[in-house]
Amino acid sequence: MERTYVNQLTDRVGELVRIVGFAENQREMGKITFVDLRDITGKVQCVGYQLMNDVTMESVIEIIGEVKQRPEKMINAQVQNGSIEIEVQEYKLLSKAEGLPIMVNAKASNEAEVDVRLDYRWIELRKPEKLLIFKVWTELERAFMEYWTSNGYIEIHSPKLLGAPSESGAEVFEVNYFDRTAYLAQSPQFYKQMAMAAGFEKVFEIGSVFRAENSNTIRHTTEFTGYDAEISYIDSHYQIMEEEEKMLVFALTKVQEKYGEEIKRVLGVELNIPAVPFPKITMAQAKEVLDKLGIKSEKGGDLSSEEERELGNYVKKEFNHDFVFVTDYPIDVRPFYHMRHEDNPNLTKSFDLMYKGLEITTGAIREHRYDILVKQAKEKGMNLENIQFYLDFFRYGMPPHGGLGMGPSRLVMKLLNLESIREAMFLFRNPRRLNP
Amino acid sequence: MERTYVNQLTDRVGELVRIVGFAENQREMGKITFVDLRDITGKVQCVGYQLMNDVTMESVIEIIGEVKQRPEKMINAQVQNGSIEIEVQEYKLLSKAEGLPIMVNAKASNEAEVDVRLDYRWIELRKPEKLLIFKVWTELERAFMEYWTSNGYIEIHSPKLLGAPSESGAEVFEVNYFDRTAYLAQSPQFYKQMAMAAGFEKVFEIGSVFRAENSNTIRHTTEFTGYDAEISYIDSHYQIMEEEEKMLVFALTKVQEKYGEEIKRVLGVELNIPAVPFPKITMAQAKEVLDKLGIKSEKGGDLSSEEERELGNYVKKEFNHDFVFVTDYPIDVRPFYHMRHEDNPNLTKSFDLMYKGLEITTGAIREHRYDILVKQAKEKGMNLENIQFYLDFFRYGMPPHGGLGMGPSRLVMKLLNLESIREAMFLFRNPRRLNP
Repeated sequence: MERTYVNQLTDRVGELVRIVGFAENQREMGKITFVDLRDITGKVQCVGYQLMNDVTMESVIEIIGEVKQRPEKMINAQVQNGSIEIEVQEYKLLSKAEGLPIMVNAKASNEAEVDVRLDYRWIELRKPEKLLIFKVWTELERAFMEYWTSNGYIEIHSPKLLGAPSESGAEVFEVNYFDRTAYLAQSPQFYKQMAMAAGFEKVFEIGSVFRAENSNTIRHTTEFTGYDAEISYIDSHYQIMEEEEKMLVFALTKVQEKYGEEIKRVLGVELNIPAVPFPKITMAQAKEVLDKLGIKSEKGGDLSSEEERELGNYVKKEFNHDFVFVTDYPIDVRPFYHMRHEDNPNLTKSFDLMYKGLEITTGAIREHRYDILVKQAKEKGMNLENIQFYLDFFRYGMPPHGGLGMGPSRLVMKLLNLESIREAMFLFRNPRRLNP
Repeated sequence: MERTYVNQLTDRVGELVRIVGFAENQREMGKITFVDLRDITGKVQCVGYQLMNDVTMESVIEIIGEVKQRPEKMINAQVQNGSIEIEVQEYKLLSKAEGLPIMVNAKASNEAEVDVRLDYRWIELRKPEKLLIFKVWTELERAFMEYWTSNGYIEIHSPKLLGAPSESGAEVFEVNYFDRTAYLAQSPQFYKQMAMAAGFEKVFEIGSVFRAENSNTIRHTTEFTGYDAEISYIDSHYQIMEEEEKMLVFALTKVQEKYGEEIKRVLGVELNIPAVPFPKITMAQAKEVLDKLGIKSEKGGDLSSEEERELGNYVKKEFNHDFVFVTDYPIDVRPFYHMRHEDNPNLTKSFDLMYKGLEITTGAIREHRYDILVKQAKEKGMNLENIQFYLDFFRYGMPPHGGLGMGPSRLVMKLLNLESIREAMFLFRNPRRLNP
C-alpha cells in the first residue's frame, strides 16, 4: 500500500491510507489510545481502539486507517489537519523510543540545557521549526547554485588538505599525513585564484572551511560551510559588490517564494527582499559614524562585533536596509593579497558585507601583479617559502580578478533571526564540542 | 567599453570590440605580429602592425580592435572562428608570462612528465579539453541537486571533524584539535543516518571525504568529493537502486543536453543515456560468471579491480549496458550497519554500482534496530565506546532507512573516458602529493 503524507490527508476523507512517522503525545482514555503522528509534512491525530498502548513518545510507527472528518465541534482550527483524524485499523511499531533524554518540544532555559540539547541534536531537530531552517538552507543553496550556473560560473572542489599552512598560518589545524604534516584549508582562497590562472574566468565553490580559533562565541565555529566566488577581468571591488547584490537578491527571492509564508507562520519572521544597490560606506566613514554614536573600540582599523552591531542599527535607521557594505579597509587588517589603492597605498580595494549587524562576507579585488604581490607578502612578514606554490600562480599569466567568501550559516542565522550560529548548523563544532 | 566574448565575434564583423584572454602562438612576420587570443569561449587570431611584439606565450592581454572577415582563401574551416580575425588597434599586457615551465598544449609522455604537469596543474587546465571536464562536472552536480531538491530531499552539511574515528577506524586521518585528537570524516554515513533519526526523511550531502589509504593508483585519492543520499521508510535495497537509476538518468540527460555535442567534438566521446532498469546481479552470480571467464581473485567475497573490469566487459557484451548493480554482498566485506537477509544472515541487503567496470557507488538498507545493530557491531569487533554516539541515534525512534554514497570524480572519469581520476579532479591528492 502506497504511503500517504500527512499533508495529503484532507483530500482523502473516507479512504483507507497508510501513514508513517513519529508518535507524539500518546495518551489513553479508557480503551481508546490517541497518538499524534508527525511526518515531514505535518501532524495528524490517530485514534485506536484497544490498540497502540505500547507506543511510547517519539517511537516510529506505521498506521493503516481510515481518514475521518471530525465532528464540527471538535475541529481545532489552530492545528494543522485539525479537521480530520485517522481511525486506526492496523499499526506497527517500527522503532520503539525508550527513556527519552529530552522532550522534543521543550526549550533550554540555561546554557547547561543548551548543551544537553546539542548532545541530543537529532531529537532537538525533530521540532518542525528546526526542520524549516534546513529546508530554507536547501533552497538558499539551490538558488545560489542556480544563479552561478546560469551566469557562466564553473564549480570547483578545491583540496582541504594542504602541504603548507594557507594564508596567515595562524589558526590552522594540523593533520598527521603519513610521514609528514598537512594543514586543513582555512578557505579555498588560493585555489579559486588558481582557477583564475587556469582561465576558468568565473568560479564558485561550496565547501568546508576549518578555523582553529579558540573562541566559544555565538558567532564562531571551528568548521563551517563556505560559499566562495571569484571572477576574472574586473578592475574594481565595486563590480564584486554588485555581483554579490545580484546573487543575494536572486537567492533570497527564491527562498521567499518557496518558504516566505511558512517562515512567517512558524518563526514569525518577515522575509524582505533587500533593495539594490545596498548602502555602502567606507571604513573611514563608518568609524566617523561610530565615533559620533559614542562607540569606542580597540579594534583599530577593523570593526569589533559591537561596532558591527551598532553600524547595522544605524544603517537600518538611516537607510531602512538590513545590509551594508563597508569598503576600503586599511592594509593592516587585510591579507597581503588584497589590492591597494594607487592614490592611498594604506587602503585596500576590499569590503565586508554586514547583514543585520553581522559580517557575512569578505571580498576584494586581488593583487594579480607578481612583483607587487611578493612585496606585499614580505611587508606582512609572510613566510615566502610556504606560499611560493601560490605565488607561482601569478608568474605565467594571471587575469586581473577579485571575489568574495560568504558564510551561509551566518546568513541563515540572520535571515531567520536565530539566536546563535549553532541553530543554523546541522551539527555545531567549537573547541569544546566534537560530538555527536 | 563592454567586453566581447570570442564566441560572439562572428556576429560583429566590422565592429570595434574589446576582448581579453591568454595569448597563444605569438609569432612575427616582419612588422606584423599574430597572436591567438583564447578566452573561456574559444580562440581568435589577432593581427597587429608594429604592435604586440612584447607579448609572450600565455601572457594575459586585452585587445581593442576591429572584427574582420578573412579573405575567402584564408578561411580555416578546421578552426573555430577561422573565418574572422581581429585587426588590433590598441592592446594592453595585463599579466606577462615568463619562463613557462610546461607548454599548454603538450602532453606528458611518461610518469615524470605527468608529475610535472600536476605541479603546474593550472597551466595544464588551460587546455580547452580540461576546461570541458569541469564544465561537465558543474552541470552534473547542478542536475543532481535539481533532482534532489525537486524530489523533497533536504541538504545537510555534516561535520568533517569527529570526536572518534568513524566506521572502522582504519585509514582515518588524525587532527591536532586544541588539547585533544579529532578525526577527519571518511564519509558522512553516520550523520546522514542521524538526519533520518531527526525525521528529515530524505537527505543529500555534497562534501569532502578523507581516506588515509596508502595507495598510489589511478583510482585512489586521499581526499575527494562525495555525493551521499539517505532515505527513510523503505524496506528494500532495490528501492535505493531504483532511486539511483532515476538520479543518474536525470543528471546524465542534463549533461547530454548541454554538452553532448561538445563532448563528442572535443573528447571524441559519445554520451549515452543508460536504459532502465540497470542490469542487476548478485555477488554470488557475479562470482560464477567470473569463474566461467577464468578470472581468479584473492579478494574473497569482494571484487578485485580486475574482476570489476571483467564484469563490466561481460555486462557490456551481454546486456549492452555500461552500468551493473552487484547486490547482496557477504557480511565479511560489508560494514556492521548494513542490514542482513533474514533468510541468509551471511548476506547483506547491499549493493555496489559499477560503471564501465569501476565501482562508483556503495549502498544498502541499514540496520535500524538498536539491539541487532549493537550485536552486529560486536561481531565485527568494533570499539563500541567509539561508536556509542552513533548507536544512540537508534534508541529514541529511528525510521527504517537506507542510502548510498557515490564518487563523482569516478563518475566523471568514466563518463568522459579519462585515463585517471587525477584528470577528473581540480587538484589531486595522494600520499605523495599535497601540492600545489
